[in-house]
Amino acid sequence: MHKPGRHFLQIPGPTNVPDDVLRAIDHPTMDHRSPEFGDLGLRALSGMKWVFKTAADVVIYPASGTGAWEAALVNTLSAGDRVLMCETGHFAWLWHRLATRLGLEPEIIPTDWRTGADIAAIAERLRQDDGHSIKAVCVVHNETSTGCTSDIAGVRAAIDSVGHPALLMVDTISSLGSIDYRHDEWGVDVTIGGSQKGLMLPPGLSFNAVSAKARAASDQAALPRSFWSWDEMFAANRTGYFPYTPSTNLLYGLVVAIERMQKEGLDAIFARHQRHAEATRRAVNAWGLEVLCRTPEHYSGALTAVMMPEGHSADAFRKVVHERLNMSLGNGLGRLANRVFRIGHLGDFNDLMLAGTLSGVEMGLKIAGVPHARGGVGAALDYLSGEISATAAKAAA
Amino acid sequence: MHKPGRHFLQIPGPTNVPDDVLRAIDHPTMDHRSPEFGDLGLRALSGMKWVFKTAADVVIYPASGTGAWEAALVNTLSAGDRVLMCETGHFAWLWHRLATRLGLEPEIIPTDWRTGADIAAIAERLRQDDGHSIKAVCVVHNETSTGCTSDIAGVRAAIDSVGHPALLMVDTISSLGSIDYRHDEWGVDVTIGGSQKGLMLPPGLSFNAVSAKARAASDQAALPRSFWSWDEMFAANRTGYFPYTPSTNLLYGLVVAIERMQKEGLDAIFARHQRHAEATRRAVNAWGLEVLCRTPEHYSGALTAVMMPEGHSADAFRKVVHERLNMSLGNGLGRLANRVFRIGHLGDFNDLMLAGTLSGVEMGLKIAGVPHARGGVGAALDYLSGEISATAAKAAA
Amino acid sequence: MHKPGRHFLQIPGPTNVPDDVLRAIDHPTMDHRSPEFGDLGLRALSGMKWVFKTAADVVIYPASGTGAWEAALVNTLSAGDRVLMCETGHFAWLWHRLATRLGLEPEIIPTDWRTGADIAAIAERLRQDDGHSIKAVCVVHNETSTGCTSDIAGVRAAIDSVGHPALLMVDTISSLGSIDYRHDEWGVDVTIGGSQKGLMLPPGLSFNAVSAKARAASDQAALPRSFWSWDEMFAANRTGYFPYTPSTNLLYGLVVAIERMQKEGLDAIFARHQRHAEATRRAVNAWGLEVLCRTPEHYSGALTAVMMPEGHSADAFRKVVHERLNMSLGNGLGRLANRVFRIGHLGDFNDLMLAGTLSGVEMGLKIAGVPHARGGVGAALDYLSGEISATAAKAAA
Amino acid sequence: MHKPGRHFLQIPGPTNVPDDVLRAIDHPTMDHRSPEFGDLGLRALSGMKWVFKTAADVVIYPASGTGAWEAALVNTLSAGDRVLMCETGHFAWLWHRLATRLGLEPEIIPTDWRTGADIAAIAERLRQDDGHSIKAVCVVHNETSTGCTSDIAGVRAAIDSVGHPALLMVDTISSLGSIDYRHDEWGVDVTIGGSQKGLMLPPGLSFNAVSAKARAASDQAALPRSFWSWDEMFAANRTGYFPYTPSTNLLYGLVVAIERMQKEGLDAIFARHQRHAEATRRAVNAWGLEVLCRTPEHYSGALTAVMMPEGHSADAFRKVVHERLNMSLGNGLGRLANRVFRIGHLGDFNDLMLAGTLSGVEMGLKIAGVPHARGGVGAALDYLSGEISATAAKAAA
Repeated sequence: MHKPGRHFLQIPGPTNVPDDVLRAIDHPTMDHRSPEFGDLGLRALSGMKWVFKTAADVVIYPASGTGAWEAALVNTLSAGDRVLMCETGHFAWLWHRLATRLGLEPEIIPTDWRTGADIAAIAERLRQDDGHSIKAVCVVHNETSTGCTSDIAGVRAAIDSVGHPALLMVDTISSLGSIDYRHDEWGVDVTIGGSQKGLMLPPGLSFNAVSAKARAASDQAALPRSFWSWDEMFAANRTGYFPYTPSTNLLYGLVVAIERMQKEGLDAIFARHQRHAEATRRAVNAWGLEVLCRTPEHYSGALTAVMMPEGHSADAFRKVVHERLNMSLGNGLGRLANRVFRIGHLGDFNDLMLAGTLSGVEMGLKIAGVPHARGGVGAALDYLSGEISATAAKAAA
Repeated sequence: MHKPGRHFLQIPGPTNVPDDVLRAIDHPTMDHRSPEFGDLGLRALSGMKWVFKTAADVVIYPASGTGAWEAALVNTLSAGDRVLMCETGHFAWLWHRLATRLGLEPEIIPTDWRTGADIAAIAERLRQDDGHSIKAVCVVHNETSTGCTSDIAGVRAAIDSVGHPALLMVDTISSLGSIDYRHDEWGVDVTIGGSQKGLMLPPGLSFNAVSAKARAASDQAALPRSFWSWDEMFAANRTGYFPYTPSTNLLYGLVVAIERMQKEGLDAIFARHQRHAEATRRAVNAWGLEVLCRTPEHYSGALTAVMMPEGHSADAFRKVVHERLNMSLGNGLGRLANRVFRIGHLGDFNDLMLAGTLSGVEMGLKIAGVPHARGGVGAALDYLSGEISATAAKAAA
Repeated sequence: MHKPGRHFLQIPGPTNVPDDVLRAIDHPTMDHRSPEFGDLGLRALSGMKWVFKTAADVVIYPASGTGAWEAALVNTLSAGDRVLMCETGHFAWLWHRLATRLGLEPEIIPTDWRTGADIAAIAERLRQDDGHSIKAVCVVHNETSTGCTSDIAGVRAAIDSVGHPALLMVDTISSLGSIDYRHDEWGVDVTIGGSQKGLMLPPGLSFNAVSAKARAASDQAALPRSFWSWDEMFAANRTGYFPYTPSTNLLYGLVVAIERMQKEGLDAIFARHQRHAEATRRAVNAWGLEVLCRTPEHYSGALTAVMMPEGHSADAFRKVVHERLNMSLGNGLGRLANRVFRIGHLGDFNDLMLAGTLSGVEMGLKIAGVPHARGGVGAALDYLSGEISATAAKAAA
Repeated sequence: MHKPGRHFLQIPGPTNVPDDVLRAIDHPTMDHRSPEFGDLGLRALSGMKWVFKTAADVVIYPASGTGAWEAALVNTLSAGDRVLMCETGHFAWLWHRLATRLGLEPEIIPTDWRTGADIAAIAERLRQDDGHSIKAVCVVHNETSTGCTSDIAGVRAAIDSVGHPALLMVDTISSLGSIDYRHDEWGVDVTIGGSQKGLMLPPGLSFNAVSAKARAASDQAALPRSFWSWDEMFAANRTGYFPYTPSTNLLYGLVVAIERMQKEGLDAIFARHQRHAEATRRAVNAWGLEVLCRTPEHYSGALTAVMMPEGHSADAFRKVVHERLNMSLGNGLGRLANRVFRIGHLGDFNDLMLAGTLSGVEMGLKIAGVPHARGGVGAALDYLSGEISATAAKAAA
């Protein structure tokens, strides 16, 4: 069916790709061994270091995000290695399953999928691990299925508090470029990222940021690997090239997306997302609905998962919104299937896009007959305009 | 300054151009004398007949809309000819000035710029014109400066009621493809259209639809003309070609835009715009502001002009909206300068885009300190969702 | 029929549009009254002054090139004014016809369509015009139908030599940005340009460069005009805006095209075209065919018209080239119909594109059974590579 | 340095991407879990079956081609498995190295890198393998480093002739969609493909076509895998979806590229490439240079590798061509480094693009001072035009 107007892509990624990023991708493919390519490669690599806030090495894979999960593990671990994971939600669970399939021995610390990683439990488990059989601690920074973030600096502190040598690996697929993240400062060993969320690109690129310690570990790691191997990447990347065919056209887009981010500034980007997240939660509260994340310190700036009232289908609601209002919302995943819907407010986004998004939710609730109070959008607008007025007043003062 | 997210282009044209129309324009320019071009030309011409609801000839100019005004006059009239115009607003006034500059003798029937053309006055003036010195009656179908439409069938009836032979010329620049319009059924002699409004294209093309009577008049018309001449156009158009270089790439887009319109259907497009206009007026009323158009039968489906409260600057408000909320609204023109702002809700547009637009107005009013009641967006959402529910209920019944 | 690979658009315009120009055009249309637009407008206007080599005013019309012909005349002349034109070919003849249709009294100095304008004849005719009834001299700088240029500085000198006050108007539609042209230095009053040739844009924009003398003439000129009027343009242009809707998206492209030209430099662009023209003529000579232009000082850098051997149809040959080799060549126009074909080598073009083009001609001659000697391409390659080697040797010395 | 005109990307892939494929990629990213996506996925998957000439399953990876090599191995084999490979050139050698890194035990049958796989040696080796310790035979269909194809049907026959149960795996990265290939008819178990060659896409997608036998083998295969696992792919693909984020925008392009291929027809595409390859070899011979492939039955339709005269650097020559003539040619790889250059004539390509390409080589040879005879381009043009004339004569008869 033909639907007029712009689709509202408000899943928590892929996100809305800016026009100039799409147009950059829409340029003739070039020879990835030409003299000109090296410059492009160097700009992409150094730009990604800026995004990760790291001086360490960054790897860019011509593969979507799941690949970078695999890459982190196969480059640093050996069959049978024990890894400690935190089941903050569906994606943490998928990463756990992936580790199992690769022949690792993951242990998983549960949560109720409504909060961040349990740092005390991590510390406790590591304390018990006298023999240092646990080789890595794996945490999802922003759990895309729940809208709960985890305190990565806290996890680092927990590991250090017991003097455990495990590597710290962090999935930032839905936080990178949207929520404050600091690979070096927080002492992360491998950070995993993807192109299709905060970086405002189509899916197809993924990333590893790699500490010196992780790099050293890769010399010992025995899991078979070739496509994901860091070593040849590092060698070729020095001059901006890649050991095998890179995703040339997405790299064109990456460089332009990073330029956009540098114009706005990371701090401004993070603040923008926090503000939109707060406005969204105010709308949810006004509707009388419940935000899935129950611990405010773990609220996500990138997305908000909303619980459906008992007896109502989140998927039926999402279908109404999709068909009648031309907006895609995220579905409930795993144990949350049909019980929550997720509002993505990350990427290339602004106040009026958020207003349209929340309007779509409010109208959808009404059309779908979901019990709710009117006025969520109004609450969000009050907050957003109030913030602008306050900023303006401050600037004028 | 870098502004994240999509700009809301909510002036009453140029409108938001759909992505596939932009991408069609973004194809290599072709030889406009090649065998392939004729097919493109024929598709564009027959598509435009469908848009105009005419079996008569349509001319496509490689020039923006003002040119089609001039074309209508120079092809049918001679120096010193008297034409009767209706000052429904700023654009009618500009057309009047253009006629004067071309050496015609326009008379203009005033309005207060808050309603449609005065049909009784037209009839009265023509009745007095015993000698048939008035050669044409010129009306703007949708006055872009005021958001008031005029009753074209009524104007036709008025002309006929006094048996006057004047040509009827209608400017549909901001109504064509947005508001119901019927060149043949309403007995219009020359209709003027442009690409950048309901046709969802960038500016750069304009149109004349030409009745047999107008065509006959062109044989006698003595105003000098060459670029705008219909005769060579008609001859070349028969096989899909043009007498001089056409705007090839915009024609690519035109054909795609018409395909989009045909998929949705003109009636559905018109209904969509009326619905958005009604939602907009409900928001305006809820804010306690006044719609400029004071006669409901003249309400425009394409735009709504809103009066600023006494003592407040519409331009200061628009500046806030532009700078803080990344939205362009239309300004007050001519005597309405700084006294109204105009909300465009035409072209490729949907409910959530409208919700974002109205949210921008509501937030802007608050930030700019314009007195208003809260709740305009809520009123619009209630109406929009109510309509959807009603439609769904009907479909289910 | 599907044809693989890139079409060779080797007519003398529209020319091949560079990818980044097309992509610039493929951006959302903006509000042409927004604060941001003024900057775009100013960049376009100042860029065009650079292209015209003028400090005088430049007008940018949202209309294709024929419009700028009309604009030059209606802004400076009155009904019945006498103008002196030079029939260098089909386009000069069309301009003459346009002048007639506008109510002027053009006189035309013939040529055999194989050379440039007859400067001695111009001087002679002006000398006889004691009463200065001739108000303008109109010359086509590069006659697109013949591939003959005219000596504009020479025309200026001829006018001055007899102390005649006529305005000098020059059509540079197919030379601007391809062949050296100097509006100010050569004392031209109105220069006419178009977007779709050397400026590497799709058709849809056209230009007037206007001397102070022409501007003064416009105060007296009585031909009716509105769309083409310079006065409101000049007023609005001061801040980068336009009196009516401009062709926004083509202006995006224009700014990028000018940036490209500034990177390469006008002198380098002109030299590139002269080199390609010389290579083309060497190929034509090697084939044993005849270049239409018979006076080497008038050879065009933008295109080469080639005479068909007696008894052979140029159009049949062009059809073979189009159908079998996916290349468009220019046809013979007016009295040259079916007797010549034209090779465009202007715009965004390089050695290998020329080699492909000439290969297409050589293959087409063979396939179509046109008598010719083999080796035209080889002669061109020898010249082109010889030039490169000579340049490299010089640089190394 | 700014270089005017279109770059000639004549490496043997990535190839020239057609404009409409690039424009398809340049559309907003969609929700890969939306109802609309399934249709896109199904079209991509069924289209790829048509390309592979298979009724079996096809996997589409959001990863560049090297990944599909790894996928073929990890899905079907276990650590320590013996595989028989054919060192037809650099890429075969890289695949061999990849197998080693994954913990397999590859044996490699050498060639002199100037011919196809040694089928007799394969048969002989398999005959000796009484215990069937060899689990797979791996062959590169078109060795991109040498321009030599291998006879896949012949390899199949060799395996069958000795009744060996090994899987047959074939790399078609640079042949798929360019050179006749038949997954089912030739009894291949796993075919590996990539997007950036005959499929006319940017790099970033890769493929496995999987026979029932290979699929059965995957149940036993013990190499760790997750990202590359076929099982979840097959499950999700049934409805057109993917188990993890696909490369949405490249899939848009894939569907359009396949439509282009279906319009032209695979047989026509293959014939076009053979014709261009023959023309290229005629040019090479006319220059007095030597085609690397010494066995005509292995000539590649996709690329031609050319040997440099003794004492001359292929890379110095390529640098001249790149800098002076704006064309990228392929370099010599591995043991062929600096000794050959490679001309890609695959993908979206036509006669005049080839003429431009060969002209660039001929001019480059002259500029770089490489000893050669003049006339290669002429020989190619004679062949190409002769073929067209012959076809036309046949059609007319």
